[in-house]
Amino acid sequence: MKKLKFGLIGGGNGAFIGHVHRRGATMDDLAVLVAGCFSRNREKSLDTAEKWDVTDINRVYADYQEMAEAESKREDGIDFVSIATPNDTHYPIAKCFLEHGIHIMCDKPLALTAAQGYELEALAKEKDLLFGVSYTFAGYAMIRQAREMIDHGEIGRVLTIQGEFPQEWLIVSLVSDHSEQATWRHDPKRSGESGCCADIGTHVEYLISKMTGLHPKRVIARFDHIPAEVPLETNAMMMIEFDGNVPGMIWTSQLAMGHETEPVVRIFGEKGSIEWSHLKPWELRVTRINQPPQVYTTNRDYLYPAAKELCRLPSGHIEGFYEAFGNIYHGFIMNLLAKKYSIDAGTFSYPTVADGIRGIEFVDACLESNKKGNIWVNVGK
Amino acid sequence: MKKLKFGLIGGGNGAFIGHVHRRGATMDDLAVLVAGCFSRNREKSLDTAEKWDVTDINRVYADYQEMAEAESKREDGIDFVSIATPNDTHYPIAKCFLEHGIHIMCDKPLALTAAQGYELEALAKEKDLLFGVSYTFAGYAMIRQAREMIDHGEIGRVLTIQGEFPQEWLIVSLVSDHSEQATWRHDPKRSGESGCCADIGTHVEYLISKMTGLHPKRVIARFDHIPAEVPLETNAMMMIEFDGNVPGMIWTSQLAMGHETEPVVRIFGEKGSIEWSHLKPWELRVTRINQPPQVYTTNRDYLYPAAKELCRLPSGHIEGFYEAFGNIYHGFIMNLLAKKYSIDAGTFSYPTVADGIRGIEFVDACLESNKKGNIWVNVGK
Amino acid sequence: MKKLKFGLIGGGNGAFIGHVHRRGATMDDLAVLVAGCFSRNREKSLDTAEKWDVTDINRVYADYQEMAEAESKREDGIDFVSIATPNDTHYPIAKCFLEHGIHIMCDKPLALTAAQGYELEALAKEKDLLFGVSYTFAGYAMIRQAREMIDHGEIGRVLTIQGEFPQEWLIVSLVSDHSEQATWRHDPKRSGESGCCADIGTHVEYLISKMTGLHPKRVIARFDHIPAEVPLETNAMMMIEFDGNVPGMIWTSQLAMGHETEPVVRIFGEKGSIEWSHLKPWELRVTRINQPPQVYTTNRDYLYPAAKELCRLPSGHIEGFYEAFGNIYHGFIMNLLAKKYSIDAGTFSYPTVADGIRGIEFVDACLESNKKGNIWVNVGK
Amino acid sequence: MKKLKFGLIGGGNGAFIGHVHRRGATMDDLAVLVAGCFSRNREKSLDTAEKWDVTDINRVYADYQEMAEAESKREDGIDFVSIATPNDTHYPIAKCFLEHGIHIMCDKPLALTAAQGYELEALAKEKDLLFGVSYTFAGYAMIRQAREMIDHGEIGRVLTIQGEFPQEWLIVSLVSDHSEQATWRHDPKRSGESGCCADIGTHVEYLISKMTGLHPKRVIARFDHIPAEVPLETNAMMMIEFDGNVPGMIWTSQLAMGHETEPVVRIFGEKGSIEWSHLKPWELRVTRINQPPQVYTTNRDYLYPAAKELCRLPSGHIEGFYEAFGNIYHGFIMNLLAKKYSIDAGTFSYPTVADGIRGIEFVDACLESNKKGNIWVNVGK
Repeated sequence: MKKLKFGLIGGGNGAFIGHVHRRGATMDDLAVLVAGCFSRNREKSLDTAEKWDVTDINRVYADYQEMAEAESKREDGIDFVSIATPNDTHYPIAKCFLEHGIHIMCDKPLALTAAQGYELEALAKEKDLLFGVSYTFAGYAMIRQAREMIDHGEIGRVLTIQGEFPQEWLIVSLVSDHSEQATWRHDPKRSGESGCCADIGTHVEYLISKMTGLHPKRVIARFDHIPAEVPLETNAMMMIEFDGNVPGMIWTSQLAMGHETEPVVRIFGEKGSIEWSHLKPWELRVTRINQPPQVYTTNRDYLYPAAKELCRLPSGHIEGFYEAFGNIYHGFIMNLLAKKYSIDAGTFSYPTVADGIRGIEFVDACLESNKKGNIWVNVGK
Repeated sequence: MKKLKFGLIGGGNGAFIGHVHRRGATMDDLAVLVAGCFSRNREKSLDTAEKWDVTDINRVYADYQEMAEAESKREDGIDFVSIATPNDTHYPIAKCFLEHGIHIMCDKPLALTAAQGYELEALAKEKDLLFGVSYTFAGYAMIRQAREMIDHGEIGRVLTIQGEFPQEWLIVSLVSDHSEQATWRHDPKRSGESGCCADIGTHVEYLISKMTGLHPKRVIARFDHIPAEVPLETNAMMMIEFDGNVPGMIWTSQLAMGHETEPVVRIFGEKGSIEWSHLKPWELRVTRINQPPQVYTTNRDYLYPAAKELCRLPSGHIEGFYEAFGNIYHGFIMNLLAKKYSIDAGTFSYPTVADGIRGIEFVDACLESNKKGNIWVNVGK
Repeated sequence: MKKLKFGLIGGGNGAFIGHVHRRGATMDDLAVLVAGCFSRNREKSLDTAEKWDVTDINRVYADYQEMAEAESKREDGIDFVSIATPNDTHYPIAKCFLEHGIHIMCDKPLALTAAQGYELEALAKEKDLLFGVSYTFAGYAMIRQAREMIDHGEIGRVLTIQGEFPQEWLIVSLVSDHSEQATWRHDPKRSGESGCCADIGTHVEYLISKMTGLHPKRVIARFDHIPAEVPLETNAMMMIEFDGNVPGMIWTSQLAMGHETEPVVRIFGEKGSIEWSHLKPWELRVTRINQPPQVYTTNRDYLYPAAKELCRLPSGHIEGFYEAFGNIYHGFIMNLLAKKYSIDAGTFSYPTVADGIRGIEFVDACLESNKKGNIWVNVGK
Repeated sequence: MKKLKFGLIGGGNGAFIGHVHRRGATMDDLAVLVAGCFSRNREKSLDTAEKWDVTDINRVYADYQEMAEAESKREDGIDFVSIATPNDTHYPIAKCFLEHGIHIMCDKPLALTAAQGYELEALAKEKDLLFGVSYTFAGYAMIRQAREMIDHGEIGRVLTIQGEFPQEWLIVSLVSDHSEQATWRHDPKRSGESGCCADIGTHVEYLISKMTGLHPKRVIARFDHIPAEVPLETNAMMMIEFDGNVPGMIWTSQLAMGHETEPVVRIFGEKGSIEWSHLKPWELRVTRINQPPQVYTTNRDYLYPAAKELCRLPSGHIEGFYEAFGNIYHGFIMNLLAKKYSIDAGTFSYPTVADGIRGIEFVDACLESNKKGNIWVNVGK
């Protein structure tokens, strides 16, 4: 089975996330980068191509339209494209590649509005194309283990859920150094109408879905713009009713000094609980009724196969952010290979355009609830 | 300065909390138990008296009215009474002793309704009597340290607050052994209309007040009665606006397997954060902007004097639940001694009837919000 | 069954440990303090008596000899005496009370030399008296749980053991404030020839014995006197062969900044491991072969009865140093009551004069090994 | 500046460590794999070449001698070779490539005997070639931060050191599944005379050197072969005197159930302490005298530049085992680039042949001490 070929949009200005996509896509030697439009600046784009071993400079494109067109015509054109550009450009780029029949892995968020998301979903369906959205944290093996345990009834019916994602860099930046990141992340034109709910809250919303299979049905949200009335909310509190009337909360904040990047999900069931924290993402804290809490770790025999196969290193050797990203791509690529060669993708999965849409719908419902004085608002159509 | 004399109502049936009150009150050799009504069963009451070194059996009373009357007439009558009886009896007992001019330390909750609370507060004021309410967790020295740091501006303006109190014993009991505790705690006649919000949520509400000086102004609450429609809520989610428009959340649950007794309060300010967890109550996690988090511990030179004076043991030697209780009593007794001997109580303080009322008002607002479909309800009059 | 009566030597100058003994002995309402010699200063002794409710001033004695004599002659004389005086006085005081037929609970260390220990042991045997030594940390319930698990074969044959006790107060004191404690703890006349090995290393040696039933057979020790050549060692490293040829190490240090009071014991067996740390003494970390580590906690149904009966508070409520001390006394008192009333003491136990002797023998062997250039030295006779 | 070209010996049978070397070497896009001898099985070797994008099959060699010869003759021959073969082959392979003038990055251990190490060191010196040894854990950024802090005097003179490396996989394997890994790791012909001391103890020895600059001067070691008399020791206890008479201990064990891969180093100085654990390798626990412990994390402004430049991801995003390996290679490559282009390598460094030799000398001294009955043995020539 030959490696898949892929192209990458973005990453050429030393942009952190472009490199992460490339590294994720190539991690398990199942795909090779052969084309790209890494920067609007030609020189930078070529420099990046050289650095990243894209040897055919004819496949270093001036813009994404040109690339979609050219690659779709080549016999040896790319199998999929990775989109790692600013949030407001995801939609047009994804649309263009779909129209040219190319599979997509798009950085989060999928788009700025749900309408854009629905259009992309419909187009992908029409063209029979895979469309992944890179919800990084969901790539950790123990997230999969949690889902397997819940699906196998190990904690019984889910009774309540607590999620959070406290983060400090923005407040540190706002109060101290006023970095560029802090600026664009708080420009509604480039980031959409929501700040921390869209940026980090959706990670928690998706993690919960991934771990439990449950989606938010309705939500009460309060957004606060602090300190000093920043354009987008920096603190978001959500009271949620999930499928099956399961109550839960999500708190997400960019004011949380002392917390660097800490998504946490805790799931409480009738027979036990499962807790995951990004502080030690290779662990799962599992408590069974009236028993001592246990700490499950990666790559152990006692894990479900679907979780174990997401581990590369012997237990006790840390896989981190890159490998989580690699697992997102691994699932996507395995499904694409399965499609291409008409084989079975096994238990591999990846976050799809539908998941991306749910994230937008969730944010939209939160925005509406906040505007209307914090009342219940249904999520989705 | 002679020890204070006190009496105790309750504790005679091996009731856990009566013993805790006695031990807390006598911990620092500032008070001696000389009277009581430990049980409605005379024999048990006398047995307890003997066990607890109450040598004058004339001061072992058949009921609290008799005790209030007799003790108030004695030259050497009790200075204060400790009330450690079931929740629904706090109000009549406290009222009776106030009427007889005796100071009060009452177990939490103060009463079942705010109206009862207001009456007790007015009566205490009228009679010029001290009235303490035993919010145990607030007795930990590091809670005081947090307040001192915030009052001294160490974390700047408070921006947002997160509190929680997950607990597992009730769900364990409901699902497995159906203990007696589980039964009475869920009898509205004896516990009031609220379950976990009143029982454990108020601890968090008070801890936040104690640590920050901020009180809930309005609240959106959702109560859930799970599993299997128990009479009182077992999971309560609160979205709160504190004084000064500070947003916050409290989650409290009796469904939280894997969490034995875990109140946690995290306070985020413009210049830093302070976090306290009952998992290690002798610690305070303090983060200053752009600096590494620090772990403050008890009885160190770097603490504020008002916190350090609440420590009995060298740092690294664990003071736990009893000593926290002892600190509540210590503050109460120091203030009572100060009153009695017209001296200064220094920085010692204790939770008062006003704090107890705020707890009831908070629960009432939550109950109303929950009934009305989870809308904002103002807290208090 | 009436309470036991006891006397206390020491504690009268606000000495921390005297109060701890009193509180430990009376914690469970099985004993009452009726006599004492709290200070060589009469006034202080009387003040302490009043504070501690010793009402008969005839039983506040000028010296321990007078006390032993008087109490042994009284019909209602004390059942046992608690010795909480400086280390160099333990031996003469204990000997005197034994000679007068009074049971003993002695602070650690038992004596300054093994010869003194043997003499006390022989005398206690001859007089048929109980002789306890207060190894505090061994009082934690989870230490007992560890032993029960090992005795029941839950981790199989013990393969290796790691113990440590890092502490920082002395180095902090030596480098910064030069406290009085630091001075007397480093006076060989008052503390014996060993510093941190005797002071804190013996706690680890006893904890290991208590948890596993294994004693050190021979030892290689290196003592260092740092910084600046203090009279007694501040850092002690021990390589140990336990019974059954089990290898182990103990490190104990008074130079360990960042560690307040942290005895830790880790026991590795053929089928699992058990680890206990004073950082969370209510926990036991248990790993079974090829399974996730589990965290056992106090007062749970899954504990062995002998461990559970050492718990006073519901799980999740912290019992600390005082309660550990209380458990030492509880075991001692239950055995004394059993002896007095010819009943069964059940599973209760306490550290005895034999354990105290083993501690001295261990220190003696370490001192010899250190002096001889760190060679193997047998422990004990 | 063009990428360096490198070759790889080993990795072709799905061998874990070969892939790790390749990924480490290419991580920062400073080197490209162009040649190799991945397996003695030609087909496997070619499969691996294809998977790893080694496109010129003429550079996929049958054996290492052929490869060294061919590559050394090519104009565009490899700059360096990575050796990722079984331990007993490191020496001949390294020697061969040195003789052909090719720089080396060799997996740990450098060789089976110190004599081999000296020979390689001399040869590298003679040929003016770089020779790296991949001590993975030393690649973590916080290890560098520790060294910078100590070199800048932040904890004062080092007083004592504690190191350990408990691990469980071997005992789990020995008792349960008898894996192939367990077999070859315990074959003296392939692994040398020492088991866990050589395999994991040397990691700790090197970490300590890297963090403090101090090397073991002499050692007392005890090796145990448990359970059931395995050929090589599975538990090693070392009492050490470091440079400057600093006392320390290292414990390393393959019997330590509950510990997956846990090197820990704790360094105690006159003014503070620094502690690092592989359980959270992105943290450093720092305590300054009489101050609260602090937790330093990766990629923060408060780090020394030499540590910060080893971080790729924003703080809070986990870099793990691969990135630590990448840092080892990064330092090696930066030095090689500096040499090649006569530029400055800045603060970048890497473990060298001299470090590899020290590891062997340390193990040799331990073996000798163990054989001679656990007496002091000097380390090195």
